Amino acid sequence: MVDIASTGNPRIKSLVRLRTRRQRDATGLFLVEGERELESALGGHEVLDLYVCADLLTEHGGRVYRRVEEAGAIPITTVSPAVLHKVSLRGNPSGFVAVLRQWEAPLSAVPVADALVLVVESIEKPGNLGGMIRSANAAGASVVVAEPTTDLFNSNVIRASMGTLFTTPVAVASTGETLAWLGANRIAIYATTPAASRDHTEADLTGPCALVVGSESVGLTPAWLEHERIRIPMTGTIDSLNASVSAGIVLFEAVRQRRASRP
Amino acid sequence: MVDIASTGNPRIKSLVRLRTRRQRDATGLFLVEGERELESALGGHEVLDLYVCADLLTEHGGRVYRRVEEAGAIPITTVSPAVLHKVSLRGNPSGFVAVLRQWEAPLSAVPVADALVLVVESIEKPGNLGGMIRSANAAGASVVVAEPTTDLFNSNVIRASMGTLFTTPVAVASTGETLAWLGANRIAIYATTPAASRDHTEADLTGPCALVVGSESVGLTPAWLEHERIRIPMTGTIDSLNASVSAGIVLFEAVRQRRASRP
Repeated sequence: MVDIASTGNPRIKSLVRLRTRRQRDATGLFLVEGERELESALGGHEVLDLYVCADLLTEHGGRVYRRVEEAGAIPITTVSPAVLHKVSLRGNPSGFVAVLRQWEAPLSAVPVADALVLVVESIEKPGNLGGMIRSANAAGASVVVAEPTTDLFNSNVIRASMGTLFTTPVAVASTGETLAWLGANRIAIYATTPAASRDHTEADLTGPCALVVGSESVGLTPAWLEHERIRIPMTGTIDSLNASVSAGIVLFEAVRQRRASRP
Repeated sequence: MVDIASTGNPRIKSLVRLRTRRQRDATGLFLVEGERELESALGGHEVLDLYVCADLLTEHGGRVYRRVEEAGAIPITTVSPAVLHKVSLRGNPSGFVAVLRQWEAPLSAVPVADALVLVVESIEKPGNLGGMIRSANAAGASVVVAEPTTDLFNSNVIRASMGTLFTTPVAVASTGETLAWLGANRIAIYATTPAASRDHTEADLTGPCALVVGSESVGLTPAWLEHERIRIPMTGTIDSLNASVSAGIVLFEAVRQRRASRP
């Protein structure tokens, strides 16, 4: 017997509604699936509720679940496979869905000493935003999401981030606030744009700096383009890269320069 | 009046079936949507049929369409908005769908002089494969798809490639064939893997070389790992990057080294 077997249960219906941004904004809650994602979340964030279907737990999922169960701090609700499939956004669910409370993401949460900050403006695709957070994490960088068009707590952001949303300093702010914060903290700004005359490899990225990447469709707004501009040199028939790929390339050029300058 | 107004028309039904790989394989045909994608295709590939809905054409789409119309070489079928929405995979279609014949993609189509080849093994997500072709194009590289799990002519490959599938040397082969071809052409192999002891920036990528990236879930197969291995150095809580991002990083490190060594 499970606690909830019916997909019509009101608690299950309210979980399903958390797929929409509107409901996430209204409740301040969001859902987490995926073994790796939940492991990352458990490291530093409060999990309010865990819904589990034993029949669907993967081996990895089972290990994570037993850790939660043994710790005893998180309310656990057992559900039927039908219920878990109803709540899950994945074709192949990991056997659980966790409910977490959203957090504030102020600029003050981003470290400024020796800063390497990826600023992403108005990124539209949750998968791109999540991928950028993952790359920033791997590069030892922080992220500022300027003028967000997708919320941080969208399932596809969390999934594409592979759980690094929970372990990377990420702030959300307007472009004006971000520019003021960068200026106040003397963090150099490098706006990536095809309209630059200087390659990204020619800029000195060894000091505190922000690498700024624009949206998939319109690139960066003028406020950024007044600052130092860099471009990734391209020689084919296309004059742009996927936004997440661009971010990865400039981030790891900064990593290369920093490793070379501080042996 | 349009040529085809009914979504039940047999020709329309057969177009819809081309969304499946099975039908693409059986017919040797595939569909192209998107202004940029069609423009790239028109540059060097035979378009067999063009289905157009004047009411849905974008401004950019209208320009491409008039060029096709004026050239007079491609059969044009006008369709209703309902028909175009039925055939299109996009929520916001560009107003046309083109039918093209697939081509062979042998290793012999890949240039070997001064080679920069991105080898991608068993990439699962069409969006990743398309994004990798786009990055390779921008870097002036060719692509070999080893042990493909998605076909090149999947709509999401074409879309994520931004049409560069039509303008980039791309081959499809087994891993064994690819290794033999690289050996015969004296193209150095660099397998990207977290298990490498050498950073990608420490390898000399200025000569003819293949940068090899594995699948999202399992990485590279052992046959590649016997060769020189490189890793992208990571310092965060995650030990891997999105496969398409990894490919972009190693490709543009090769570009950086080549530009620096040949001023």
